[in-house]
Amino acid sequence: MELSEDQLIEAIARVLSGEEPGVVVGIGDDAAIVRPGSGQAVLTTDLLVEGVHFERGTISARDLGAKAITVNVSDIAAMAASPRYALVSLAVPAGIEAAWVIELYGGMRDVCAEHALALVGGDTNRADLVVLSVTVVGEVAPGRALLRSGAGAGDAIVVTGSLGGAAGGLTLSLAADASSLLSQPWARALLEAFERPVARVGEAQVLARAGATAMMDLSDGLAKDLSRLCLASGVGARVRTANVPVAPALAAGADALGVDALQLALSGGEDYELLATMPMNALEAATEELRDGFGVALTQVGEIVEGAGMIAVGPGGEERVLEPAGWDHFARG
Amino acid sequence: MELSEDQLIEAIARVLSGEEPGVVVGIGDDAAIVRPGSGQAVLTTDLLVEGVHFERGTISARDLGAKAITVNVSDIAAMAASPRYALVSLAVPAGIEAAWVIELYGGMRDVCAEHALALVGGDTNRADLVVLSVTVVGEVAPGRALLRSGAGAGDAIVVTGSLGGAAGGLTLSLAADASSLLSQPWARALLEAFERPVARVGEAQVLARAGATAMMDLSDGLAKDLSRLCLASGVGARVRTANVPVAPALAAGADALGVDALQLALSGGEDYELLATMPMNALEAATEELRDGFGVALTQVGEIVEGAGMIAVGPGGEERVLEPAGWDHFARG
Repeated sequence: MELSEDQLIEAIARVLSGEEPGVVVGIGDDAAIVRPGSGQAVLTTDLLVEGVHFERGTISARDLGAKAITVNVSDIAAMAASPRYALVSLAVPAGIEAAWVIELYGGMRDVCAEHALALVGGDTNRADLVVLSVTVVGEVAPGRALLRSGAGAGDAIVVTGSLGGAAGGLTLSLAADASSLLSQPWARALLEAFERPVARVGEAQVLARAGATAMMDLSDGLAKDLSRLCLASGVGARVRTANVPVAPALAAGADALGVDALQLALSGGEDYELLATMPMNALEAATEELRDGFGVALTQVGEIVEGAGMIAVGPGGEERVLEPAGWDHFARG
Repeated sequence: MELSEDQLIEAIARVLSGEEPGVVVGIGDDAAIVRPGSGQAVLTTDLLVEGVHFERGTISARDLGAKAITVNVSDIAAMAASPRYALVSLAVPAGIEAAWVIELYGGMRDVCAEHALALVGGDTNRADLVVLSVTVVGEVAPGRALLRSGAGAGDAIVVTGSLGGAAGGLTLSLAADASSLLSQPWARALLEAFERPVARVGEAQVLARAGATAMMDLSDGLAKDLSRLCLASGVGARVRTANVPVAPALAAGADALGVDALQLALSGGEDYELLATMPMNALEAATEELRDGFGVALTQVGEIVEGAGMIAVGPGGEERVLEPAGWDHFARG
């Protein structure tokens, strides 16, 4: 079924909920108008392109919509800020089903509802492939944002949850024998990690209150993202590889997938867990609060050191340079 | 030359100016942080896809960058708001020249500087074609925004500047004999209108102060955009075709291009002039202020009537239904 731009905007406006707090003018005018909060505005945007970030055959429209919002909410969370408003631009090929577009917006709405985020505007277009651009506006009290640049020597390096699950899910979705593996519980868990990542909004605010000194979200893999945090903070890092929390489903499926689980946990992208640094003495309380409040593990994977560069320390104490190799959407094409 | 994502972000950060008023955290962290203004936040986003909105062979990177910012600033202007911050997501094919990307950001910077807009963040990706997504955050005093929904029967329908120039430029750029026509002054003027549209920020604020009741920018052509304004306001319109300000360069080149100048002025897109409605008695002062302050014409093209639908009134008084046919990026693909 063919939709004109006006028809599509109308369908999208219908699938989105009506009155939202703070929204003065929503979808349908030249721009949206929102009431400002009392804090500073936090702005982030992310572009998802078919064939680069996703394949339409291997992710449902609903999961894609959810993920597009989640990856932006995760960037807001990584500043210890609260997401408030989302804008969505969509380009779709001529042959797209209306139902696919409605499902896509349904997935976006799910995640927006979960984080009390209002979807206030956007833009629709034709293109030869699906392009989805999401902008999220958040809010943070002045001076309370956590940047990448605050890590100091002696800080613990911590991550939330477990790592490598999303990269395992991507590997699985590209595997020739994927369908024969899908009866395995680990396989479904890996796909879930890849297709339905979760943004750690509340967890980030716990880490900020607990005294975290720097924070970012893990979109491009621990090694690469930690190298960025170190560069921004002017420090180095030592990572104890035995402490890296490999996703249990990845550990279970690594042999069947023919991958090195630790390697994926270090360099796989799109986990959207938090990477933070904090004083050693803040670690215990933060760990307890995340576990009790969110059921989410906080794991120390290393420590910040003076200087530059990263060292991986193996189980037997052996050391090697940890290269900032990771997921580079830009290098893939 | 191949650039990694980090190298590209660094190059972009270099081409962009440094400290900007209101920017707490700019490019390089998970998100940007800006100080809120005293007004309400106005949000808009627009996606430009190669092959749909532009062809890389027919527009320079600098013009493309400038236009990507301008079309968003125009949406902010159409709310009678002031643009403050921009976010840019870019996807480029693997073979792109670094110089092309730098020029693109140079064009964005030009327009940002013109409107005192800070480019505070974004995202870079690979894709098989160039995709550019821009979000602009603006500001407006509470209750002062001009929506599409405020037009009332008896209001004059006005447009700034002249119409059809951009569509003429697009027609020319696609013409087989384009290069032989480029020695003509009208041809260069049409290309300029298409490649370097201007956002009417100050003009919009004049119209708002003068008492405009509804406003939008002309991105999809007068007929289509006016139909949207009428629908939002629950009114109809009568357009006097003899009064439609056809771009002089289009009038000069229409025969050579084989187009109907009035038709393009009614249905051609991407002029980014303002379409507004205002009480008849506000027209004279507004016209003088735009002419004296900006050197921009304000032309009454018709009036708002009760009911629904649009009528075109010809030079001899003959009437026909004016169909909302125009530029539909969505229908093109």
